[in-house]
Amino acid sequence: MSLLVVGTMAYDSVKTPFGEREKALGGSATYFSLCSSYFTDVNLVAVIGDDFEDKDISLLTDKGVDISGVEKKDGKSFHWKGEYGFDLNEAVTIDTHLNVLADFNPVLPASYRKSEYVFLGNIDPALQQKVLDQIENPKLVAMDTMNFWIDSSKEDLVKAVKRVDIVIINEGEARMLADTPNLVKAARYIRELGPSTVIIKRGEYGALLFYKEEIFASPAYPLEEVFDPTGAGDTFAGGFMGHLAKTKSSGMDATLLRQAIVMGTVMASFTVEKFSVDRLAELDRKEIAERFKAIKKLTHFEHIED
Amino acid sequence: MSLLVVGTMAYDSVKTPFGEREKALGGSATYFSLCSSYFTDVNLVAVIGDDFEDKDISLLTDKGVDISGVEKKDGKSFHWKGEYGFDLNEAVTIDTHLNVLADFNPVLPASYRKSEYVFLGNIDPALQQKVLDQIENPKLVAMDTMNFWIDSSKEDLVKAVKRVDIVIINEGEARMLADTPNLVKAARYIRELGPSTVIIKRGEYGALLFYKEEIFASPAYPLEEVFDPTGAGDTFAGGFMGHLAKTKSSGMDATLLRQAIVMGTVMASFTVEKFSVDRLAELDRKEIAERFKAIKKLTHFEHIED
Repeated sequence: MSLLVVGTMAYDSVKTPFGEREKALGGSATYFSLCSSYFTDVNLVAVIGDDFEDKDISLLTDKGVDISGVEKKDGKSFHWKGEYGFDLNEAVTIDTHLNVLADFNPVLPASYRKSEYVFLGNIDPALQQKVLDQIENPKLVAMDTMNFWIDSSKEDLVKAVKRVDIVIINEGEARMLADTPNLVKAARYIRELGPSTVIIKRGEYGALLFYKEEIFASPAYPLEEVFDPTGAGDTFAGGFMGHLAKTKSSGMDATLLRQAIVMGTVMASFTVEKFSVDRLAELDRKEIAERFKAIKKLTHFEHIED
Repeated sequence: MSLLVVGTMAYDSVKTPFGEREKALGGSATYFSLCSSYFTDVNLVAVIGDDFEDKDISLLTDKGVDISGVEKKDGKSFHWKGEYGFDLNEAVTIDTHLNVLADFNPVLPASYRKSEYVFLGNIDPALQQKVLDQIENPKLVAMDTMNFWIDSSKEDLVKAVKRVDIVIINEGEARMLADTPNLVKAARYIRELGPSTVIIKRGEYGALLFYKEEIFASPAYPLEEVFDPTGAGDTFAGGFMGHLAKTKSSGMDATLLRQAIVMGTVMASFTVEKFSVDRLAELDRKEIAERFKAIKKLTHFEHIED
């Protein structure tokens, strides 16, 4: 199955309590595509500047990611500068330079138009729709967004939400979009707009899946060393969609959706172990399967007798 | 099995986004004992003022709670006034009147001294130890604490920690006590002081159990209506210790510890559904067993093929 992702490819300047790095490879589509390449064929749509290094492109192509939808433009790549405090829970954005992203206009190569699985990473909801317009008959479409678009483009955002099957969103952003502190209500609000499934990401606390009348809760994997949380959410989405694509899920099978949440959790737990994509780039299927089992053990308990 | 609890019995003034109540029955030992009375015999140690109402005592004795260790003194009962904001996550303390709690000096009735299970609720760690001194040969001892004692009485607190089997503590307080943002490290720090088991409470995000090299994560039960989070942590502890006492656990059986965490989660989820102890006071075993099953369903996922 082929999985199309549109999002950012970036160079980040990241500072955590454990160190800092300039020009760290980043961006939502970078994390997503690297991650999902462990599961399925990936069609990447993004824009990069002329400063984008060949070795960073090779990292993706070596894993089979199709980059024919990556447009290279004159100018600099998107740049995010951020810093994490003591508890690593929240990134403080120091600076954002859109650069070539400012007039991103995604045009899909003909070979991408039959992509069956689609992930619309966090970009302008008008562009998310424009990508969707170019795909012939997708089987399953998921999207992410962020507070900026809820604030500035709510109407467009709601239009995009109405066209997807799955919304993957942060806890705070779900509350903001639905204007309620209660996540059960927030998920219902979003599902009533159209999507069958809502996934709420809670950082180090894990994720919640809302599908039909079911709720599934997955904790994050407790790590003793967390170096850099950048990209954890996009990696989560990559593991989630990757598993659904690999298993040819229609998105209407609760068993696969639940496994996919855990797979997202597994992949995100690797990403945060090192700076940038360093850990994500070096995984093998055995480690992935082992950590999946570790999360099974982490959450397992026996029934009680009544 | 008999379960002794020492802690506070209080009248709270509570305001949440959904309403407010004056003279709401509260206090750590009240929530704990009401909750654990569904599982085992409870010996309650606390101090109350002459304003404490008979109907509130009857609520406990009707459930079989032994109140021969509750001392009634001239003066007013402990009073806490607090308020919860929009997201219900954190209580802001408006006022605290210790009243009769100011010179609490717990003396155990002879009949309590053979209690097998002990929970030292959040009071002065010197008093927690004093209670422990009066128990002959407890099988399993757990304790709670709070930031106030970490700040003001760390030496005494560490002494208390060294004498118990299980520490049940909030996330923020675990970080504070161990002086690290990482919970895996914080739990190890506390376990190295002596306790075999550390339980970290994370409010609406659930709880983590650290026992030997095992970690178990339980989510909280997602509720659509949360009215009043007061007492959730003490109820959690009551369900946890209640299940261990009921199953005669030595505290060294990971299966029972994991179930006990889930039972704590079950009971806490009821408490927050109504003001004060209103929901907790009206439960039956069938509802409890059903919600336990609901948490099993909430967290279940299937293995994947490698």
